[in-house]
Amino acid sequence: MTSVTETASAGGAPTVTGTPTENPAELDRTDPATEVARAAQAYRNWGRWGEDDRIGTLNFIDDAKRADAAKLVRTGRSSSLSQPFDMNGPQLGWRRRTNPVHTMLDTGTDAQLANQGFPHGLGGADDVIAMPLQCSTQWDGLGHIFDHGYAWNGRRSGEVVTSDGDLITGIEHTAAEIVSRGVLLDLGRHLRDSGELEDGYAITTADLESCIRAQGATAAVGRGDIVLVRTGRYARAQRDGWNGYAGGPSAGLSFTTAGWLHRSEIAAIATDTWGFEVRPNEFDDAFQPLHQVVIPNMGLTIGEMWDLESLADACAADGIYDFLLVAPPLPITGAVGSPVNPIAIR
Amino acid sequence: MTSVTETASAGGAPTVTGTPTENPAELDRTDPATEVARAAQAYRNWGRWGEDDRIGTLNFIDDAKRADAAKLVRTGRSSSLSQPFDMNGPQLGWRRRTNPVHTMLDTGTDAQLANQGFPHGLGGADDVIAMPLQCSTQWDGLGHIFDHGYAWNGRRSGEVVTSDGDLITGIEHTAAEIVSRGVLLDLGRHLRDSGELEDGYAITTADLESCIRAQGATAAVGRGDIVLVRTGRYARAQRDGWNGYAGGPSAGLSFTTAGWLHRSEIAAIATDTWGFEVRPNEFDDAFQPLHQVVIPNMGLTIGEMWDLESLADACAADGIYDFLLVAPPLPITGAVGSPVNPIAIR
Amino acid sequence: MTSVTETASAGGAPTVTGTPTENPAELDRTDPATEVARAAQAYRNWGRWGEDDRIGTLNFIDDAKRADAAKLVRTGRSSSLSQPFDMNGPQLGWRRRTNPVHTMLDTGTDAQLANQGFPHGLGGADDVIAMPLQCSTQWDGLGHIFDHGYAWNGRRSGEVVTSDGDLITGIEHTAAEIVSRGVLLDLGRHLRDSGELEDGYAITTADLESCIRAQGATAAVGRGDIVLVRTGRYARAQRDGWNGYAGGPSAGLSFTTAGWLHRSEIAAIATDTWGFEVRPNEFDDAFQPLHQVVIPNMGLTIGEMWDLESLADACAADGIYDFLLVAPPLPITGAVGSPVNPIAIR
Amino acid sequence: MTSVTETASAGGAPTVTGTPTENPAELDRTDPATEVARAAQAYRNWGRWGEDDRIGTLNFIDDAKRADAAKLVRTGRSSSLSQPFDMNGPQLGWRRRTNPVHTMLDTGTDAQLANQGFPHGLGGADDVIAMPLQCSTQWDGLGHIFDHGYAWNGRRSGEVVTSDGDLITGIEHTAAEIVSRGVLLDLGRHLRDSGELEDGYAITTADLESCIRAQGATAAVGRGDIVLVRTGRYARAQRDGWNGYAGGPSAGLSFTTAGWLHRSEIAAIATDTWGFEVRPNEFDDAFQPLHQVVIPNMGLTIGEMWDLESLADACAADGIYDFLLVAPPLPITGAVGSPVNPIAIR
Repeated sequence: MTSVTETASAGGAPTVTGTPTENPAELDRTDPATEVARAAQAYRNWGRWGEDDRIGTLNFIDDAKRADAAKLVRTGRSSSLSQPFDMNGPQLGWRRRTNPVHTMLDTGTDAQLANQGFPHGLGGADDVIAMPLQCSTQWDGLGHIFDHGYAWNGRRSGEVVTSDGDLITGIEHTAAEIVSRGVLLDLGRHLRDSGELEDGYAITTADLESCIRAQGATAAVGRGDIVLVRTGRYARAQRDGWNGYAGGPSAGLSFTTAGWLHRSEIAAIATDTWGFEVRPNEFDDAFQPLHQVVIPNMGLTIGEMWDLESLADACAADGIYDFLLVAPPLPITGAVGSPVNPIAIR
Repeated sequence: MTSVTETASAGGAPTVTGTPTENPAELDRTDPATEVARAAQAYRNWGRWGEDDRIGTLNFIDDAKRADAAKLVRTGRSSSLSQPFDMNGPQLGWRRRTNPVHTMLDTGTDAQLANQGFPHGLGGADDVIAMPLQCSTQWDGLGHIFDHGYAWNGRRSGEVVTSDGDLITGIEHTAAEIVSRGVLLDLGRHLRDSGELEDGYAITTADLESCIRAQGATAAVGRGDIVLVRTGRYARAQRDGWNGYAGGPSAGLSFTTAGWLHRSEIAAIATDTWGFEVRPNEFDDAFQPLHQVVIPNMGLTIGEMWDLESLADACAADGIYDFLLVAPPLPITGAVGSPVNPIAIR
Repeated sequence: MTSVTETASAGGAPTVTGTPTENPAELDRTDPATEVARAAQAYRNWGRWGEDDRIGTLNFIDDAKRADAAKLVRTGRSSSLSQPFDMNGPQLGWRRRTNPVHTMLDTGTDAQLANQGFPHGLGGADDVIAMPLQCSTQWDGLGHIFDHGYAWNGRRSGEVVTSDGDLITGIEHTAAEIVSRGVLLDLGRHLRDSGELEDGYAITTADLESCIRAQGATAAVGRGDIVLVRTGRYARAQRDGWNGYAGGPSAGLSFTTAGWLHRSEIAAIATDTWGFEVRPNEFDDAFQPLHQVVIPNMGLTIGEMWDLESLADACAADGIYDFLLVAPPLPITGAVGSPVNPIAIR
Repeated sequence: MTSVTETASAGGAPTVTGTPTENPAELDRTDPATEVARAAQAYRNWGRWGEDDRIGTLNFIDDAKRADAAKLVRTGRSSSLSQPFDMNGPQLGWRRRTNPVHTMLDTGTDAQLANQGFPHGLGGADDVIAMPLQCSTQWDGLGHIFDHGYAWNGRRSGEVVTSDGDLITGIEHTAAEIVSRGVLLDLGRHLRDSGELEDGYAITTADLESCIRAQGATAAVGRGDIVLVRTGRYARAQRDGWNGYAGGPSAGLSFTTAGWLHRSEIAAIATDTWGFEVRPNEFDDAFQPLHQVVIPNMGLTIGEMWDLESLADACAADGIYDFLLVAPPLPITGAVGSPVNPIAIR
């Protein structure tokens, strides 16, 4: 069933023959290992930006790109693309991913009862948080996913991410990078009158391309762009409750879009879903196989759990789908992901 | 010594006579309560944006302001103004403010040893953080400081910030707001050849005005701007070690700049210091009196612990001091402050 | 319907007439406020151990009691009465009560890959935890519950427990106290062949007394004892899954047992349930009314979520129901509760 | 300089010749690797309690031992041997070891202002903690230290402790075990009139034996005992401030006591110091070499940062040095250490 040949190196990625398909119907559902290996080989960017690279496809953004992106600001309307960070989020504790726990060190009730010990009537409130870095709106760092023990740019995963964090590709290296032209691809509205794709719908390359054509010139996608794919999954969660938003069934990108993600030379991509790719995954027994191709092999930065609703409404209203996107991670040293409040300015 | 009359309302702010001085030499060092009360009365913005207002002076920013700010992008160079978030930060545990504790839920060493139980060679790393929201580069929310038990817009502090967080002016309400024209005022370079002000130096209104004049037209400050004041304190910490950066002596704004902060109608202000205002404070026994005036009374959003070094170098190099500033807080529900990675785009 | 008269003191507990009933059928289900007030008045121990008391009924234990308790050790068999502390616990995030999040600072996989930087072949693992203090097996401290703004011994709750924790009755004051004779009352086995009481079953004073008689002389309860009440709720959770163990329906003590809890002069009591008292509570609209009587008024220390299964098996096997119980809280300064691993030695 | 021969197994512990010395003057200060290897070989208990053993020398305690220990209770006086758990502890953030951060989810100030939403006058306070498991009084679990990538009983460290915690020898397996006869060896009082050993003093086997002789019959040490060694370091910290208590110079056990620790067949040992063994360590370049011998090789459970002061006073007063010791860890699943409030009952 499989043509996988394990490499000599213990734990190394397999070498396979054949080219990846861009047609979901042609995927061998029984053999994710081979499909992953084919796509990984075909779309691998290791060495493309030098041996020491830490940021992968974010290299596609340069100052000129950013300057052009700033020119997309028309009305000055600013939209936050972040979901709330609080205990009411979708996390269920899987692999210790909880919702944020925000507690107060000092409160206004204390201040009102004047028990804080400050002079001249000063009172204060202060707070702490404990949270998984990927509990809500987030970027996946390049150290988040590995392929057979290898991380981005061909490094051994054990030399990149230890208990001390990501020693090489930590999210802090992208602190100033994630500013570019953003393009919204509203697949929900494009494919369904309801504006919402059903769970398990795998968005194909053909879908992406037809959406771009339908949305018009401002939706063209090219080098250095940050693509935001709206499925409508978060709209449903807001209306009907989380119901498995974190890890359950959802529309998302088909495994077969890896080729498009590669040749479009986008800098990053984000979705309004928990997991970016379609769930259940398109194999009998698999877990996030598209991640395995695009993060460690392609070096693509992925955003998840974004709130694209108000932005999508605005884009639908005026038919303009590109904007300045400023989405800096918190520079947490060694983090393999980061909460983010992405800002679209139109 | 004091003309303070306690208001009838238990715990209320005192009513005083006299007008605030803008000359530090005229401050009564022995009577911060009266000086605070005078400034609070004179510069109070309660009701200015309606009874229900949650964002204070951020109201000075509108879409037109943002659109104009985007036009300031010239080369497309993006600078992160954030300090690192890690255990090596300046916090010493005062009032339970620690440095961030970042730990891994899964690592690349685990993935390399293939003990994670994922199919088809997938490996993953994931992480959590526990941190005070004001441990590193931050915005103070409007619920952070109170004046005699009163919070922004005249609300009782005990009705605003409980153990459940800030129920009214939580930082989440500013999620999309903090995008505007930024202006760097490099007081360190303006006042000292070394580029660094000495600890305890109180920056006056006259200093601010002379710095603006010296820096030229791009340093003009007006309605809706976000002013970044560089003292050089962080440059010293980077070079010589923290040495009391968190809470110790530092240059900073004089208490007497409250009038300038009010009439300039700026939207927000941030510094490269721990505490925004000069430390030790300009009274015999006081704690952050300028905070008490500008946060609960004026409704001004304050940023602290920003890294202005690379931005300041760039501004000094080309003599252009304004830029697009995008500095969104994380929308943590009910937070009285937020970590932020502010992005300046020039 | 109610004879409640609010006291002059703002927020104070109401004064009522009438005596509390010990018959659940006589409770006025529509008026928990009056029933609570009657029981609070009748069983209040304020001042019993002086104005400065911090430990309430734990005062009933003295050295002689402990010396006698040690004589109960027969075989030397030691049983842990603690449930596990981990992410698989029953908590659902209600009021930010999560399960414990345990993460590693260093691991054996790191050590095996020799990336830790230690000399002479040393490797290490280290860990941190973030958890609510009442997430699993626990003691409620005396600062955990208030009655109309009053805490144990008649203090204002706002003067006892601020954002800095419990300044007066913090759990640390009981660090050496909770060592005494333990008595297991196995209501589950006593009342049901299955050994498990059904949800909503309210254990009455009559039940407690008949259980003591049935279990025999070693089950006699008196001054300074620590009583462990087994309902069988945890046995069911272990077998069938949590299913609402945290906060849902459960057997537990009837509100009407307050009198027995008072006159028996026990030092503390613990159950194998989340909430000690029966749930739903015995009123149309109430929340943990027995807590409101026994913690702030009686000064009784309550344990919850104990694992009494192996102990109960041993007691049933030899018919001996008393033992040395050593159940020290962690002396977390200012805590209003503590995780505990209670040890019964028989 | 060294006779170390690396074993064939990659990363394995070296094989050496020679026998360990019990005389500190004979240690080769330049070659900790060889000295560690000699002691590890000589005192290794792998397989002693079977292939599946999880608790090491705690196996020396049996029910009869516990029953005998209970007979040591004379007056019933109970002493907590725990230091406080709070922000004022000794930790400085080394390897992310902070002091505990205890925050409130609800407070009495909130309850007093009646903003909690509970019926019938109920108010509540609740709290959370974030802390390293070894921040204060603690047990080291058997998964805490490794020798050349090997853990207790000869297992590969990477198979024992992953990011999911200690999968085999987690502290939860000792939940009911740590109840036995305790013996205080007050080396501070025995060796110095001041009662306090100076920093860097290495307690030798000869010191231990002379202390036992001097203290008399109740200080005899044998199989299954838990030995508490008092140096006086904590007394100094309480009096003079922490001053490097966590990780700095201290008296402690000499590396050469490994033989005594082995042949005495004690179940566990604890000290009033941060690190159990003398610091600086007795080699030119080493880190906690005695840990490397006794934890992974001998299977000995070690306690650190205990407060032995009140116990030592009591022992000195009546000349009786043994007692019932009940020191159960919190059964945190997979933990490599645990906070503990040890109780001595005399």
